[in-house]
Amino acid sequence: MNHYFNPVKICQGKGCLAKLPDLLQSLVADKGSDVLLIVWSECVLEHEIIKDLLNKQDGYKVHPVVFTASNPSVQDLYGVYDHTRKLNLGAVVGIGGGSVLDVAKSLCCLHDLDISNIDELRTAIIDKRFTENKMPWIGIPTTAGTGSEVTCWATIWDPEIEVKRSVESKENYAYAALIDPDLSSTLPLALAVSSALDAVAHAVESYWAKASNCVSKALALSAIREIMLHIDGLFSEDFAAHDAMSKGSMLAGLAFSNTKTTACHSISYPLTMHYHIPHGVAVSMLLAPVFTLNLPQIEDPKSLLAALGVKDADEFKARINGLLTRASIKSTLSQWGADKSDIEALVPLCITKGRADNNPVLLTNENIASILESIY
Amino acid sequence: MNHYFNPVKICQGKGCLAKLPDLLQSLVADKGSDVLLIVWSECVLEHEIIKDLLNKQDGYKVHPVVFTASNPSVQDLYGVYDHTRKLNLGAVVGIGGGSVLDVAKSLCCLHDLDISNIDELRTAIIDKRFTENKMPWIGIPTTAGTGSEVTCWATIWDPEIEVKRSVESKENYAYAALIDPDLSSTLPLALAVSSALDAVAHAVESYWAKASNCVSKALALSAIREIMLHIDGLFSEDFAAHDAMSKGSMLAGLAFSNTKTTACHSISYPLTMHYHIPHGVAVSMLLAPVFTLNLPQIEDPKSLLAALGVKDADEFKARINGLLTRASIKSTLSQWGADKSDIEALVPLCITKGRADNNPVLLTNENIASILESIY
Ligand SMILES: [Fe+2]
Ligand SMILES: [Fe+2]
Repeated sequence: MNHYFNPVKICQGKGCLAKLPDLLQSLVADKGSDVLLIVWSECVLEHEIIKDLLNKQDGYKVHPVVFTASNPSVQDLYGVYDHTRKLNLGAVVGIGGGSVLDVAKSLCCLHDLDISNIDELRTAIIDKRFTENKMPWIGIPTTAGTGSEVTCWATIWDPEIEVKRSVESKENYAYAALIDPDLSSTLPLALAVSSALDAVAHAVESYWAKASNCVSKALALSAIREIMLHIDGLFSEDFAAHDAMSKGSMLAGLAFSNTKTTACHSISYPLTMHYHIPHGVAVSMLLAPVFTLNLPQIEDPKSLLAALGVKDADEFKARINGLLTRASIKSTLSQWGADKSDIEALVPLCITKGRADNNPVLLTNENIASILESIY
Repeated sequence: MNHYFNPVKICQGKGCLAKLPDLLQSLVADKGSDVLLIVWSECVLEHEIIKDLLNKQDGYKVHPVVFTASNPSVQDLYGVYDHTRKLNLGAVVGIGGGSVLDVAKSLCCLHDLDISNIDELRTAIIDKRFTENKMPWIGIPTTAGTGSEVTCWATIWDPEIEVKRSVESKENYAYAALIDPDLSSTLPLALAVSSALDAVAHAVESYWAKASNCVSKALALSAIREIMLHIDGLFSEDFAAHDAMSKGSMLAGLAFSNTKTTACHSISYPLTMHYHIPHGVAVSMLLAPVFTLNLPQIEDPKSLLAALGVKDADEFKARINGLLTRASIKSTLSQWGADKSDIEALVPLCITKGRADNNPVLLTNENIASILESIY
């Protein structure tokens, strides 16, 4: 059965941030409510369009919050919730990377609950006790990779107990996403490359996921083609490449919004946790070996390889490693400080619920160990 | 700028009609309202799942209406509106071809307006005076071609003045679409082939449309590939082919829901009006000559040709004509009863607003005439 649903109003293209005032007007103008604007850095508040919004004298008010933490914790989320709970909000806007968008979308699920401390917030997340009348949010990504602007889940961390929690509901899709490559084109090279490779992983994993369907597959192949065809342009600071990464990561987001990811993401989490390998790097190191594992179960692998622009798993591995190396990113576990003897202890941590079981081939201690050895 | 929006909950696959009771439960159960069920034929009411819905003793009631007209007129629409206006409805379900779905979705725009005759209905349609709180509808296609289950417009005819009117609003997307190939797999061969070719035209025209975007293009290419790869199976009554046509026409619908069509549809309307050439046949006869006209303006024509499975315009024309001929469908204007001298009078009728101006190459009297001559 092919199931697909994604109700986000999408606008991608250079300068599309300019659509924000009209979108907000249509969302809150008649309601006498205000807007919460969460941004990743003070510098966003200096942007002409945002400055105008903040200086508005009539209609709704825009309340800015600068949120700089990456991998937001329950405590971080509670901080923003508590700081803004007294506002009469009609919409939330997030301008930033995945973390900022995750905080923005989480707040929309919580806004009219009465939560008075961090433990209550944790319980609300665990029990999925979310608001019934969700507040609309608008996602404006400043990196090209997470696809968070078109997915309906947010990752909130519980660092003391090393747990990754998901704030998730089909109701929590953004009202609109403005994907403006002007915002992501100033990313440092290594971040641009690892973000783009994260998006490639979203699309590739979506393609072979058990939960894949005919709509998500079309979007996934197109995302892969768009990114792989233009990713080399990032090294020459070509704006067209940034535009392509912004299209590709959005398309990958649309694909995996309905399928989630698989073994690469599942295995990547402990690598990020233990060796601080950036997320996009960790998942991309795993792409080729997981491709080899999954190959017997991949429907139409030729189309996948054609979209990637490679002939086989070896070329795939060389292509990814080449990109990482050219961006001065370490591409093996040993380079990232792992010891060969760590692998045995890592293996059981690599099974992430909802990801591992979505892989077309069953993950076992044996195949995980051999994948980790192959990238050691 | 790439704009995309389609909020329909999609379910495609053999037997997915069985999801209807749960969907209706979630839509109307708590509201004490009833359901209007518009079907294309009495035989639908004999289907096990539908019979159970009609015999329900608790919760909501389902009111069936059999609507057999094709190309619904303002008068037809008024008939159903007037017949059902006193019902306390919470949802409308359409099970049928494009005409039935068009009536179902039109009613949702009108249900709580106070319209007392056909002229008032015509005025409401022309002035786009639609209900603010639109009723949700569910589209269940029984042909694989129109894509009407995932578009937000309906065509209503005004036959006395030979005008095609559009009931259209972004708010009027279906709540859900159930695309069950079991329902379309019993279509007569000629209808199955012409419906599938209509879907190919939706996807091909969406691909080269001025209003095309990166999301619709991904969906369009995938629709074309799916249909062209499996369409020959219709001739051997292969169920897998019907399943592919149902996927392909839905994907094409998703694509052109955001881009509309172009010259083929624009030019086809007078051909259907004057020579009664079925819609899918008329648009498919025009595909290859319009491809040739548009070629200089098509972005990445190689991907389009690859999806079609042909090398160039000549192979494209031969492929379409071959399919029509094998299905015993006439494939030239003269076979359909046109006289060469008709062409001059036809040309000005071939410019349909919203279609012709969406074509990447300007339509002129000269190029329309030469296209009509090429299919004469
Ligand atoms: Fe990721
Ligand atoms: Fe059509």
